[in-house]
Amino acid sequence: MTGDITLLGYGVSAIGPAIAVGLIFAAYINGVARQPEAQGKLQPIAILGFALAEALAIFGLVLFFIAFFV
Amino acid sequence: MTGDITLLGYGVSAIGPAIAVGLIFAAYINGVARQPEAQGKLQPIAILGFALAEALAIFGLVLFFIAFFV
Amino acid sequence: MTGDITLLGYGVSAIGPAIAVGLIFAAYINGVARQPEAQGKLQPIAILGFALAEALAIFGLVLFFIAFFV
Amino acid sequence: MTGDITLLGYGVSAIGPAIAVGLIFAAYINGVARQPEAQGKLQPIAILGFALAEALAIFGLVLFFIAFFV
Amino acid sequence: MTGDITLLGYGVSAIGPAIAVGLIFAAYINGVARQPEAQGKLQPIAILGFALAEALAIFGLVLFFIAFFV
Repeated sequence: MTGDITLLGYGVSAIGPAIAVGLIFAAYINGVARQPEAQGKLQPIAILGFALAEALAIFGLVLFFIAFFV
Repeated sequence: MTGDITLLGYGVSAIGPAIAVGLIFAAYINGVARQPEAQGKLQPIAILGFALAEALAIFGLVLFFIAFFV
Repeated sequence: MTGDITLLGYGVSAIGPAIAVGLIFAAYINGVARQPEAQGKLQPIAILGFALAEALAIFGLVLFFIAFFV
Repeated sequence: MTGDITLLGYGVSAIGPAIAVGLIFAAYINGVARQPEAQGKLQPIAILGFALAEALAIFGLVLFFIAFFV
Repeated sequence: MTGDITLLGYGVSAIGPAIAVGLIFAAYINGVARQPEAQGKLQPIAILGFALAEALAIFGLVLFFIAFFV
């Protein structure tokens, strides 16, 4: 059995943030479909939630380079 | 037990983004089914969310080549 | 314990896209059931979302051949 | 088989908080889409829930550095 | 293969509580969005549920220090 197991750490850290981005944008799309004039209020909330969730995967990306090259 | 375990890292990193794409396009289809005239407003949101979620799997694809060939 | 663990990588990479295809076609069926005349608008969206989600499993298929034969 | 398995610990600890952030912001977006005037009441609840869930991933980040460098 | 597998224990113990916190606060936000005057009644329920779910991850945090340093 060969290969590098470090990538598995990044891999699992990317599961949650991606599902979160899907949930947030699905709610954003549903909100705009129901009230198109609310897009201006919903967009910053969706971007904020996206950034806060995506940060956890970016942490995993940074830690991958720390664990792989250090 | 033989084989290369690096691919497992990419594999799990693809779970979340795919589910996210499913959630986003399901919401997009539901929105267009309810209000067909809103398709022009919903399409860029769906494409944006798709790109932001898919990026996490593309990171895993790039890291696979780094971990496999470096 | 015998067997090849490389296939496990492709296996987990197929979890998400399959769920995504399920979510997308469920929404497509729901939309057509609610508004049968909207099928012409919903079909290309469903096919687009299906292709974008399925791509992540195809990447895993290609990477399996790279990891297995290289 | 090479690589560092410590990162896997952070990775799985990031799955839940990210999904939680997605659920909280999806509810926040839905609430504002339904009642735009309620944004002032919903924002502190969303930020509180985000902080309480994200804390579990930050614990994992701190424990990674403890387990990796200690 | 190097690294400490102890952290994996904390990691998986944090998946469930975090998702639970997300579900609780999402329901709390939905409740306040629908009936803003009910916030006083819903807040202690949300905090109680949060504390009961988060406790399971704190147990994992304490057990990590016991298993790592003892």
